[in-house]
Amino acid sequence: MDAAAPVRLHDFDEALPLSPAGPRLWDSRIDKRYWNMIGPWGGWTAALLLKAVLAESDHGGTPVGLTVNLMGGLDDSPLQLSTRPARQGKSVEFWTSELIQNGAPVAMAMVTLGQRRETFSTHEASFPEGVKRPEDIESVPTRPGFFTAMFEQRPVQGSAPLQENPDSLTRNWMRDHQARPLDYVLLAGLADVFAPRIFYRSAERRPASTVSMSVYFHATPAELEAVGGDFILGEAKGRRFESGFFDQHGALWSRDGVLLATTEQLCWFK
Amino acid sequence: MDAAAPVRLHDFDEALPLSPAGPRLWDSRIDKRYWNMIGPWGGWTAALLLKAVLAESDHGGTPVGLTVNLMGGLDDSPLQLSTRPARQGKSVEFWTSELIQNGAPVAMAMVTLGQRRETFSTHEASFPEGVKRPEDIESVPTRPGFFTAMFEQRPVQGSAPLQENPDSLTRNWMRDHQARPLDYVLLAGLADVFAPRIFYRSAERRPASTVSMSVYFHATPAELEAVGGDFILGEAKGRRFESGFFDQHGALWSRDGVLLATTEQLCWFK
Repeated sequence: MDAAAPVRLHDFDEALPLSPAGPRLWDSRIDKRYWNMIGPWGGWTAALLLKAVLAESDHGGTPVGLTVNLMGGLDDSPLQLSTRPARQGKSVEFWTSELIQNGAPVAMAMVTLGQRRETFSTHEASFPEGVKRPEDIESVPTRPGFFTAMFEQRPVQGSAPLQENPDSLTRNWMRDHQARPLDYVLLAGLADVFAPRIFYRSAERRPASTVSMSVYFHATPAELEAVGGDFILGEAKGRRFESGFFDQHGALWSRDGVLLATTEQLCWFK
Repeated sequence: MDAAAPVRLHDFDEALPLSPAGPRLWDSRIDKRYWNMIGPWGGWTAALLLKAVLAESDHGGTPVGLTVNLMGGLDDSPLQLSTRPARQGKSVEFWTSELIQNGAPVAMAMVTLGQRRETFSTHEASFPEGVKRPEDIESVPTRPGFFTAMFEQRPVQGSAPLQENPDSLTRNWMRDHQARPLDYVLLAGLADVFAPRIFYRSAERRPASTVSMSVYFHATPAELEAVGGDFILGEAKGRRFESGFFDQHGALWSRDGVLLATTEQLCWFK
């Protein structure tokens, strides 16, 4: 590459622009490459809300928890992000991040940052058994113009969609389509790559959307750096479908068995 | 009971007072019966934050999701709760609820309310096997002056605390100590009755506190009414302990196998 050439961002970073617009205020915009059926993909929104907090120069620590409420109704209009340090303690900081469009909140997040330090440590959950290496599995072909085209996925285990399966468990190797190195912002997005669990329990095509999702970031910065642009294993499963809502819990693993994040979401469906 | 006698609230309701203090503003106070080691028990805070949203006369639907960030530093001073309807849609409403003491936020919640309606429904998770009836198990003696005295718990399965166990899974039958009938507010509290998982993995006594917790309410109002004051089964387990933080995921079941709620939390520890 010519040393004088402008630095080309990865698509994922280019799609999450933040320009300062005032104290605790950022301008941003929709990116249609990360579009879902009828609006931006929730993982994009989660990543943007988290990125805005990390863009504040007076934040301390690294992300340990994130909960995003997706309130819907987004269109192509300009976006603003408003952040707030609700409480900044020595070990833990609590921030909120709100996405505003046409003067109304369309998504909001509570972000928890922690001062990671050496303590007792152990994995209680274990990497699933019988998982083939990503090199031995073919990638799923993706539909252009849909956020899934921005990720590479290799199916490991689980039910096929739009069938009446006995359970909704799926496991996939996944990574950014340009193998962008993993960080907390990308991890937040990858926690929402899973298709809605209702699609694995019912053959009917129906509207479904995430209303709330949480991500707990277990990975240390060094563990994320060690993953780099490699595939990570994502697994997700529902627990109950009832009265127009269902849940999903999931886990994201590195190839060598590090539990990088756990995630859950609550979805609405018709 | 004398018909003219004043109605005596259950302790749990008495401990969650809300007096109107202005638009979207409520006065409240600490209740030492629901105290934990160094501050109010997180389940009490979660219940209060949810109750304030349900006290707003223009809320619609019933709770489907709740995430609470416990920012700490509470003392005995008076409390105020500030609520906000971030977005009120036809099927889903998103509210925030903030607990303020001495002019600063000490806890905040995002509350999701849903219009429950008949849809495809199924349980994917199943009630654990080998669970004895609560009638066949003795209650755990509780320490007065501590929130656990406000609940009756009967241990079903799992590790003993302050030991180096191979896992942190526990199962307990539990209910309000006065058998107060179950509703969404009490369910939010019961989701935090579990002791911190670190106590089941390490013999060392150490400070630990919940920083964030989510509850997904799967139960319909009719299912809660059917439980009434009966015991429910609570199970909780950690997945990873690392760099001063650990997680816990849990489930709350009715005696006849209805998954009433799922919950997870992120805790800080020393």
